[in-house]
Amino acid sequence: MPASPPHASNRPRPARWLSSGNSITQQFLSLGGRPDIVSLAGGLPAAELYPVAEIAAASTRALARWGAVALEYGPVEGLPALRAAIAGRVSAAAGRPFGSENVLLTTGAMQGLDLLGKALIDEGDLIVAQFPTYLGALDAWRPRQPRYARLDWTFAEPTFEATLRQAKFAYAVPNYSNPTGVLVPQGQREALLDTVLAAGTWLVEDDPYLPLQLDGPAPPSILASHAARHPDGPYDGPVIYLGTLSKSLVPGLRVGWVVAEAGMIATLALAKQSTDLSSSMLTQAIALDLIESGFEARHVPPMLAAYRERRDALCAAMSSHLSDWFTWEVPPGGMFVWATARDPGFDTNALYAHALAEQVAFVPSSVFDPDGVLTNAIRLNFTRSSPERLVEGVRRLERAVRRYLAARPGRAA
Amino acid sequence: MPASPPHASNRPRPARWLSSGNSITQQFLSLGGRPDIVSLAGGLPAAELYPVAEIAAASTRALARWGAVALEYGPVEGLPALRAAIAGRVSAAAGRPFGSENVLLTTGAMQGLDLLGKALIDEGDLIVAQFPTYLGALDAWRPRQPRYARLDWTFAEPTFEATLRQAKFAYAVPNYSNPTGVLVPQGQREALLDTVLAAGTWLVEDDPYLPLQLDGPAPPSILASHAARHPDGPYDGPVIYLGTLSKSLVPGLRVGWVVAEAGMIATLALAKQSTDLSSSMLTQAIALDLIESGFEARHVPPMLAAYRERRDALCAAMSSHLSDWFTWEVPPGGMFVWATARDPGFDTNALYAHALAEQVAFVPSSVFDPDGVLTNAIRLNFTRSSPERLVEGVRRLERAVRRYLAARPGRAA
Repeated sequence: MPASPPHASNRPRPARWLSSGNSITQQFLSLGGRPDIVSLAGGLPAAELYPVAEIAAASTRALARWGAVALEYGPVEGLPALRAAIAGRVSAAAGRPFGSENVLLTTGAMQGLDLLGKALIDEGDLIVAQFPTYLGALDAWRPRQPRYARLDWTFAEPTFEATLRQAKFAYAVPNYSNPTGVLVPQGQREALLDTVLAAGTWLVEDDPYLPLQLDGPAPPSILASHAARHPDGPYDGPVIYLGTLSKSLVPGLRVGWVVAEAGMIATLALAKQSTDLSSSMLTQAIALDLIESGFEARHVPPMLAAYRERRDALCAAMSSHLSDWFTWEVPPGGMFVWATARDPGFDTNALYAHALAEQVAFVPSSVFDPDGVLTNAIRLNFTRSSPERLVEGVRRLERAVRRYLAARPGRAA
Repeated sequence: MPASPPHASNRPRPARWLSSGNSITQQFLSLGGRPDIVSLAGGLPAAELYPVAEIAAASTRALARWGAVALEYGPVEGLPALRAAIAGRVSAAAGRPFGSENVLLTTGAMQGLDLLGKALIDEGDLIVAQFPTYLGALDAWRPRQPRYARLDWTFAEPTFEATLRQAKFAYAVPNYSNPTGVLVPQGQREALLDTVLAAGTWLVEDDPYLPLQLDGPAPPSILASHAARHPDGPYDGPVIYLGTLSKSLVPGLRVGWVVAEAGMIATLALAKQSTDLSSSMLTQAIALDLIESGFEARHVPPMLAAYRERRDALCAAMSSHLSDWFTWEVPPGGMFVWATARDPGFDTNALYAHALAEQVAFVPSSVFDPDGVLTNAIRLNFTRSSPERLVEGVRRLERAVRRYLAARPGRAA
């Protein structure tokens, strides 16, 4: 039955969700390697602060300690000693015990989002997500084809609880949110928790930026707030908490975790088994060493000093170069400044092409909107670049704005 | 709006596919840690052969060479130098060039299966899979809820090409298949390729066991066969090939790869971005060192000698203890012996409980059947245990068979 090979385009088409996929994250990750571009896009830490020698030493120690265990398939749930260490960390923050059965280790917090989609979402299911919404969460859940409603942090909408009742879960990033940098105050955290409890749904608390407290401590996590109300017995609450070492140490270990009641952890472990069997035990063993040795705790404060300087340099340059067209809050932590155009008709998608022509990159607001229609804001990252590069990036962005305005039909520059 | 917390069981239910999920792989992975059980289940390499010291040295060298690059988020597609090395390996096997654009690095080959499901399968789509089917593939695709038809290696069924025409892809493990250990001869590989080409669909060639050639060389991969027909220009064929370092080195690095035409790699990279942003660059950099230094090539032959001894010990013990009830072929490679009961009514699901009572574990055939109705066979692993443990495991299995037969209603022992 010989046959001439058909052209690739005649072969079966990709799954439907891919026609609504985005290639922007991929573009950012590759733009990061181009020295001609000042990238204020992406969400990358400062690579020059990565503790290369310390991680090499930790790798040697981890293999001496764990031997073949560190080179094995997992348990699906992860290296037991690291699960226990994360449970201990959460227990200390919450003031009540969590056990290893409450912890699933993941390939970064991103995989936690993927597993949540797999475990909870069927096509058309509702997610109530804070708006604008972390791009990676939208990406992670797109293959499951959910619908979205907006999480209303003001609780002004009387139907909000009824909406939550229809949802598989609520999604929030209370600490230094991506993309807005907002730190949600304690009162609103408690109000969200109360509403979720009344609605009887799940609450996904995505907390990658916890270590990046630039202006003093953040309020307790929603997980900790809920746990404090129920100090005894196994944790049985609605909060599904996501953490990571990507911000306090390095992203390349790809070590993140989910903390939740034990039944949800078991469900997520089933989803993980069918995704990759297990994450790397070696990078988990290295992570455990870096936590137990106290290195992580020592590493964070000087990193925060550098990030504070960068945030301030970015915001000062923005005041000099962008304040005619944009407004923003100085974020009290995290990695991002969210700037909204004074002109609601400003189109930051159109600005993007002019920015690349000026060799600067940012993230346009449209990608943080499940419907893609929010086009009047930009997200700028301050952790990846030196203060000098940040200032140069903002200068280029000013030139891009002027190009954009000059090119707008019917408008003088 | 305070409210009493609802019990967990009132919260939204998991996604539908989880009600058809299996927890067996998870059980096997945890059984592996119980010294009282002789596990002939699982698909684990010999942990005592893991090259711990060499990997520690490779980790030190990799961090000295790559520095912060090894601690970074990827490119989504993986460490460029390792992509190039895998492309070189495939080019040498195929006798025609493949480039880095034909390679996506994954968290083990298992993630390749997950990404293929995400990238190609919508609910109800058809997969034509060889039968019985690798449990991990069924697990990986279950969240996408496909339908299955059987790949007919005899090509006796006149409607087979028409069935393939309806399928998103065909799925085959031509080398030492999981679960059957079968090595598919060259003629049948070519026939499958011809039929896939005529039908105009994709062909997923899953090849984790390639390094485990116990009785001489395997025929060329289907990818290599197809590539040899089209020696020039970019590869544009239907074969999507999955490989891994889990069998030739260690599983714990979690380094696998997909090789395919560049458009499919780009599609899979989009799916990967939404899954975990990237795999660990550190374990990829370690893998590159172990390949480039020639260590992998040196490591495999003595490992094969050990596996050959184990396979022969297992099969000899089976001849002594199980041949009254089972038949099997001695596999020419891989990790598994597939034994079929002489009595078609033998129920290996029921045998499993008796086996655990005798402290031995195997995999019952039902989990390799998309419909779960194949119950007269067992899969036994020979790579994980010493020859002595294998013999002890088969002795226990004989006792379990006798228990099972004694317990069958209406049957004498």
